[in-house]
Amino acid sequence: MARLTHLDDQGAARMVDVGAKAETARSAVAEGRIRMSAEALEALMSGSGPKGDALAAARIAGIMAAKRTGELIPLCHPLGLESVTVEFSRESHAISVTAKASLTGKTGVEMEAMTAASVALLTLYDMGKAIDRGMVIEGVRLIEKTGGKSGIWTAPD
Amino acid sequence: MARLTHLDDQGAARMVDVGAKAETARSAVAEGRIRMSAEALEALMSGSGPKGDALAAARIAGIMAAKRTGELIPLCHPLGLESVTVEFSRESHAISVTAKASLTGKTGVEMEAMTAASVALLTLYDMGKAIDRGMVIEGVRLIEKTGGKSGIWTAPD
Amino acid sequence: MARLTHLDDQGAARMVDVGAKAETARSAVAEGRIRMSAEALEALMSGSGPKGDALAAARIAGIMAAKRTGELIPLCHPLGLESVTVEFSRESHAISVTAKASLTGKTGVEMEAMTAASVALLTLYDMGKAIDRGMVIEGVRLIEKTGGKSGIWTAPD
Amino acid sequence: MARLTHLDDQGAARMVDVGAKAETARSAVAEGRIRMSAEALEALMSGSGPKGDALAAARIAGIMAAKRTGELIPLCHPLGLESVTVEFSRESHAISVTAKASLTGKTGVEMEAMTAASVALLTLYDMGKAIDRGMVIEGVRLIEKTGGKSGIWTAPD
Amino acid sequence: MARLTHLDDQGAARMVDVGAKAETARSAVAEGRIRMSAEALEALMSGSGPKGDALAAARIAGIMAAKRTGELIPLCHPLGLESVTVEFSRESHAISVTAKASLTGKTGVEMEAMTAASVALLTLYDMGKAIDRGMVIEGVRLIEKTGGKSGIWTAPD
Amino acid sequence: MARLTHLDDQGAARMVDVGAKAETARSAVAEGRIRMSAEALEALMSGSGPKGDALAAARIAGIMAAKRTGELIPLCHPLGLESVTVEFSRESHAISVTAKASLTGKTGVEMEAMTAASVALLTLYDMGKAIDRGMVIEGVRLIEKTGGKSGIWTAPD
Repeated sequence: MARLTHLDDQGAARMVDVGAKAETARSAVAEGRIRMSAEALEALMSGSGPKGDALAAARIAGIMAAKRTGELIPLCHPLGLESVTVEFSRESHAISVTAKASLTGKTGVEMEAMTAASVALLTLYDMGKAIDRGMVIEGVRLIEKTGGKSGIWTAPD
Repeated sequence: MARLTHLDDQGAARMVDVGAKAETARSAVAEGRIRMSAEALEALMSGSGPKGDALAAARIAGIMAAKRTGELIPLCHPLGLESVTVEFSRESHAISVTAKASLTGKTGVEMEAMTAASVALLTLYDMGKAIDRGMVIEGVRLIEKTGGKSGIWTAPD
Repeated sequence: MARLTHLDDQGAARMVDVGAKAETARSAVAEGRIRMSAEALEALMSGSGPKGDALAAARIAGIMAAKRTGELIPLCHPLGLESVTVEFSRESHAISVTAKASLTGKTGVEMEAMTAASVALLTLYDMGKAIDRGMVIEGVRLIEKTGGKSGIWTAPD
Repeated sequence: MARLTHLDDQGAARMVDVGAKAETARSAVAEGRIRMSAEALEALMSGSGPKGDALAAARIAGIMAAKRTGELIPLCHPLGLESVTVEFSRESHAISVTAKASLTGKTGVEMEAMTAASVALLTLYDMGKAIDRGMVIEGVRLIEKTGGKSGIWTAPD
Repeated sequence: MARLTHLDDQGAARMVDVGAKAETARSAVAEGRIRMSAEALEALMSGSGPKGDALAAARIAGIMAAKRTGELIPLCHPLGLESVTVEFSRESHAISVTAKASLTGKTGVEMEAMTAASVALLTLYDMGKAIDRGMVIEGVRLIEKTGGKSGIWTAPD
Repeated sequence: MARLTHLDDQGAARMVDVGAKAETARSAVAEGRIRMSAEALEALMSGSGPKGDALAAARIAGIMAAKRTGELIPLCHPLGLESVTVEFSRESHAISVTAKASLTGKTGVEMEAMTAASVALLTLYDMGKAIDRGMVIEGVRLIEKTGGKSGIWTAPD
């Protein structure tokens, strides 16, 4: 059976030793979406761009969270990210997010991209919840990663 | 059209003034799920309980993140949480999480419960990603809230 | 000679005991300004509102820093802020900032307002520094405070 | 017109990609000053050195804040600082601060030096505010930077 | 057999619900000691008071850590401390520390005092380690607590 | 007399410049112990492994604290740790902890190992304190370090 690399032989959690891995250029892209009522969607989109800071707040929250991934996720390595971007796009009943992160280092940045996407979506929830408490975050997943021993990986479909 | 309370008349983000609100007992429950391959599910469940720290790590990450919600979500008030719990349950192709938070205060703890659930799921992703990079976080949403002017709210369905 | 309340009789730093103070509604307003070249000013203002996130990023940075004042300033009490706002206005060769904070508590929020103003200005410096490295932050000061034993205070002039 | 590098073509904030930049030795020096009454100045200087921790607290606050610059300033890269110093000097109606930071890396440490200076000055404000609430922080600016593509830069006095 | 209150019936970690507890004045005192060579002791004591910031740095580190106890200790409640003090005293082959914390709240501040003492001692280790790597931290324990349902407790001995 | 490297000629605290040091593989091992009553020991050990998260919570707290050492200890450099492990073992009246940390870098990881051990022990105190408030943390010390100019160092047993 597959074993979790984050646990040692006795099952104890550990931060895996990446000291012997090579420093390579690495990147990761994650996406997700928050489904909401037409009214909440309209308010969040109108509260952005010329009219307000709504998407800007969520974007910045995502970028800042990416930098703190190592503090939030217990067994993640602290990383010196070299870039982070967070983009939103309007869907018919949702706002979707795409987060990208990259660095030159010994371990990948999947968690940084996943964390940026999640916190950006949580921030949208926070801003819209007075209008629609029933918003749902869904489809948060890795889309692509590059670098490291395993090279390029792309999500099926 | 509905307006975002987190933005002022010019659309500028702000931390809304809750000074005049009453201190009441408040609670919130959020849930979510991470869908994964049978192999990843088996590894995560086996790496828990008698054999290891996998679910414990995710539970503790969720609890600790709930306490830092005000640092992550730009317009959230910093809150003195009085309780947080994070529970997992095994589904056929997923692990689901239920997070509860409560306090006596002037503003609700929905974001704390949502953040606990999200970070717990991200931690499961981190631990399982070497086995299944395609895991998907879905259905992160508020299930119930109590307290405050609006009283009890329960998710439809 | 006046003595510093933050030091004890031996001169040792301490977090002053506010346990016996009354909980009252307290607020503080701080202001400051960053002086810059016409080119940097134009770029920062154009990169805001309809065209971009520049001021939004600085505003959110200020709000988030206010919440972490107790982590940054060694002898400050950790406080549960009830509101924070950060506003900018364009001057002829500068952008000025006004930050307000409030809470119901045993100690004042001057440092929270001062920290919000300072970090908002530092963020503007960060965004504009590729255009004008010589920008200068000046006039960061308290404008007004209310609440507590000393009541209302307003800056002279 | 000059464009902000921190914004993309649509004006969205981003953490600029420094992956392709060379690792070089980089340093930055920032300065600033807090103007105050004779009484506050006397108290802060007397509460230091043989008599107390006042300047030490501000110095340590500045050093610690420099290390957290990437958490405070939204679009700053997290950096592994190799040195930080914070020095004060007494002026006739003010205390001035000089902060230096350095590292070997892909991006500069201007913001780290600026943040160290600002937080050191905020800490002096905090300690002196019971004596003089009207203290003013001014002249926070970059004095010098070395390293990177642009080489040495010195503030036009 | 005694059961851990921090675990539920299934053994899952949780942040215990203190919502129903009364707000009372609470305090705690912890102590500890770091044993070291005569040379390290002399250097640390000489690098303090008139000559330097050594003890001041450790004192401030302890005070700042107390405020972040809820971030460090997974199941601790985040608390709004009302006072913290950290004092050192020279022993024949050691420096001892006494940390006190207090607040008016629903749960005790033992962990805040214990954390302040521990981090102050770790900081002394950090500063002295170039002289004596073999320094040992010992006797970190609670001396007294007041407030709450259990009232006053004093360490035996 | 030996001088503290963390202080400059005037005794001012500083983060020592490590820019000129070589990047080498470095590791450190620290240990410590918490002495407690038979009842507390039994509860903590029973609340672990198959029955609960007690030791897992302490292990994770130690690992997470190691990553934040640079935030807690004022003059420590922020480091990109490459591995951290925390192990417990049952003694007759105590639980002992061994923490290991490593990285490839310009400065050692002694403080990271010492901090991991201390925070893991504080977490055990937190979980056991309702049963035995008199638990004592002792023997926190460095056991071994490798790498850097000074090479291998082992504690004189």
